Amino acid sequence: MQRIRSPEVPAHAGSIIHICGWVHAVRRLGSITFLIVRDGWGLVQVVIETQPGAAPMDPPGAESIVGVCGLVAANAAAPGGHEIQNPVITVIETAEAPAIALGKRQLGCGLATLLDQAVVLNRHPQRRALLRLASAAMEGFRATLRARHFTEIQTPKLVGTATEGGSEVFTVDYFGRPAYLAQSPQFYKQIMVGVFERVFEVGPVFRAEPSDTIRHLSEYVSMDVEFGFITDHGTVMELLREVIAAVIGGIAEQCGQDIDLLGLTMPTVPAAIPALHFTEAKEIAFQRTGMDARQEIDLAPQEERALGTWAVETHGSDFLFVTGYPMAKRPFYTHPDQTRPAYSNSFDLLFRGLELVTGGQRLHRHADYIAALTARGIDPAGFSAYLSAFRHGMPRHGGFAIGLERLVMQLAGVANIRLATAFPRDVGRLSP
Amino acid sequence: MQRIRSPEVPAHAGSIIHICGWVHAVRRLGSITFLIVRDGWGLVQVVIETQPGAAPMDPPGAESIVGVCGLVAANAAAPGGHEIQNPVITVIETAEAPAIALGKRQLGCGLATLLDQAVVLNRHPQRRALLRLASAAMEGFRATLRARHFTEIQTPKLVGTATEGGSEVFTVDYFGRPAYLAQSPQFYKQIMVGVFERVFEVGPVFRAEPSDTIRHLSEYVSMDVEFGFITDHGTVMELLREVIAAVIGGIAEQCGQDIDLLGLTMPTVPAAIPALHFTEAKEIAFQRTGMDARQEIDLAPQEERALGTWAVETHGSDFLFVTGYPMAKRPFYTHPDQTRPAYSNSFDLLFRGLELVTGGQRLHRHADYIAALTARGIDPAGFSAYLSAFRHGMPRHGGFAIGLERLVMQLAGVANIRLATAFPRDVGRLSP
Repeated sequence: MQRIRSPEVPAHAGSIIHICGWVHAVRRLGSITFLIVRDGWGLVQVVIETQPGAAPMDPPGAESIVGVCGLVAANAAAPGGHEIQNPVITVIETAEAPAIALGKRQLGCGLATLLDQAVVLNRHPQRRALLRLASAAMEGFRATLRARHFTEIQTPKLVGTATEGGSEVFTVDYFGRPAYLAQSPQFYKQIMVGVFERVFEVGPVFRAEPSDTIRHLSEYVSMDVEFGFITDHGTVMELLREVIAAVIGGIAEQCGQDIDLLGLTMPTVPAAIPALHFTEAKEIAFQRTGMDARQEIDLAPQEERALGTWAVETHGSDFLFVTGYPMAKRPFYTHPDQTRPAYSNSFDLLFRGLELVTGGQRLHRHADYIAALTARGIDPAGFSAYLSAFRHGMPRHGGFAIGLERLVMQLAGVANIRLATAFPRDVGRLSP
Repeated sequence: MQRIRSPEVPAHAGSIIHICGWVHAVRRLGSITFLIVRDGWGLVQVVIETQPGAAPMDPPGAESIVGVCGLVAANAAAPGGHEIQNPVITVIETAEAPAIALGKRQLGCGLATLLDQAVVLNRHPQRRALLRLASAAMEGFRATLRARHFTEIQTPKLVGTATEGGSEVFTVDYFGRPAYLAQSPQFYKQIMVGVFERVFEVGPVFRAEPSDTIRHLSEYVSMDVEFGFITDHGTVMELLREVIAAVIGGIAEQCGQDIDLLGLTMPTVPAAIPALHFTEAKEIAFQRTGMDARQEIDLAPQEERALGTWAVETHGSDFLFVTGYPMAKRPFYTHPDQTRPAYSNSFDLLFRGLELVTGGQRLHRHADYIAALTARGIDPAGFSAYLSAFRHGMPRHGGFAIGLERLVMQLAGVANIRLATAFPRDVGRLSP
């Protein structure tokens, strides 16, 4: 008999079906044993009744692989509103039960245990639900960009020149000479604007920042966009709003059960996301935190949190654009605001008080690059291949990068970004 | 006026439109100047007629960024069957013309020049067409797997333990201690079968093989699949056939113009791909090459080519499965053929005489892993996190990995894999 998947069980009410999966939990209630079987998509309750006078069955151990044939019957108390009765159970593979039971609703263990034992603990329904958000986010991101005629690219992660700065880059022994791991696909996505005009990439990026915080990983997934023929960073912000709305909408559509299981409130992406200039944002943060950091050229985490609260209270929005970050804080390829040259045509998008996206307009003229690099004391000769894109014709362009794990972290409301991915990497962690 | 993209021009015949792009070529014919404008998707011919007695216009230089407003008229000789007449041309950005003209049909330069100047030469229509095949392949791969209820994963590229062998791995300075770049997502995709049952990933993999051949890169894109509840490698081969058919079909559907421009003959994926056991393949290769390599435990490139020819001649197929590779050649996680334990439940898929895919059934029992590692003289303690997946319940499972650049190389018929990607990496090349 053809095996069916757990979400298909309700459609077979009244029929005999065959399912396979892991023994998720076993519960005894008098002469009845409930066997909860987990497959790749959900849980199925199997009801085993012991005949009067017979010895109760010896159920297979947790995480054993089983096949079950039986009759589907409605039961509002069972997962999916249905259960399997009169089962014939086959143990396909036996297993050693994990030290931490996966069948409990909450994984009652600390962060270190959860990460150390991620290989097995990612099987827990709540972990799976959270990880599925990431899969749906990637799909929504790509689908909405393809619909807008963007071309997907895959750019090199092994590079000969450090992209944005020397200190935060991992060095690789590349056949006896140094290579670096790309901190972002920035240079390549700009170059590819010269080829396809509108490009996107979903891929790993690597940051050797020794920041051991709740919101940094040394390897994470960046969802990158870059496109040409923009007016300024406003065009980029408009596209970003559409992309974020599509990503959130796609997750809501695909992950309804996961959202319910995790008890999440999905955000609404407003038709116009409120936007503050950096200088305004600093004033509001000062009013709200009482801490005067108005001379600093970046926003501190507590300022971002205060601004997030401000956006909810004054605009009912979980999202807030902060525009015009000081040029001194932005990378050399950033386009200045021509009316206030100390500020940039760039932005961050805060989501629930955390920087989720960075983007902006880039320089597009070769002479501007030479001037920008020279002003920072960097020899343009080290960037000659990249700069040839601008020498040989580039339109005004810009783009952004969404941090996938930060998106999942804020959506799922987990307190530490290490919980927003299956196998996190940080200063101290390279495994599992 | 709203700008339109080049593929939309024919739909506006008889109307005034606005396009933007790069000056691809300029051709003069008496008093008429043809300006070919390239945008991200194609070419548009703009016709400039000089009034009698007036001086001919001074056209903008190659790769300048221009905007054109004008009337769309049919012209069978123009790209897309239409051209723009009575244009008003605005030069948006001037550019230095590249040393190699992009407006010629063929890029008349050697491999080294092409790669050294890839930043600009990837703008050539033939290069773009080839690179679009890769984008369409990734999309088709993901779409067909999502339709089969696979979950997309992103696994770490920085790992604490070298996956398949020590010699072909890049070492990274990870905050003062060694890390390695993942040679494949093999361990993680197997672990994730325990979580989601059916998983796929598209991402970079890294090989420190010093092989300087026409078919090796040190960084390439691997399209990986792994799934549970299989019978044996035959189940994996069935899925692979469906995936390859969907990928080829998706490229044919999306890239019709690119296929025409490159003059490609797309392969047909047979309903049943011919399959040879390794021992049979060796005999046929011997008959065809006259070179007796029947005692070798792998297929040499010339044997693969001979087998590719055999598949076309005897089965009319561009694809050929070779199954049952010797266990001695396969990694430790490979499942043996239980009837002939020196051979494996694994396969390669050859496409036009080149290994395109490797796959097979994996071991799924903890004790079998311990035995396999021990027999190879490897201490299982180094793999304890990975092995915990098998200790705690895993079904029979298997999967495969498709090399994206090899697929493009064979589809496009380019002689060197370095031409099948935008920015190749090899022993000697880290830039652009």
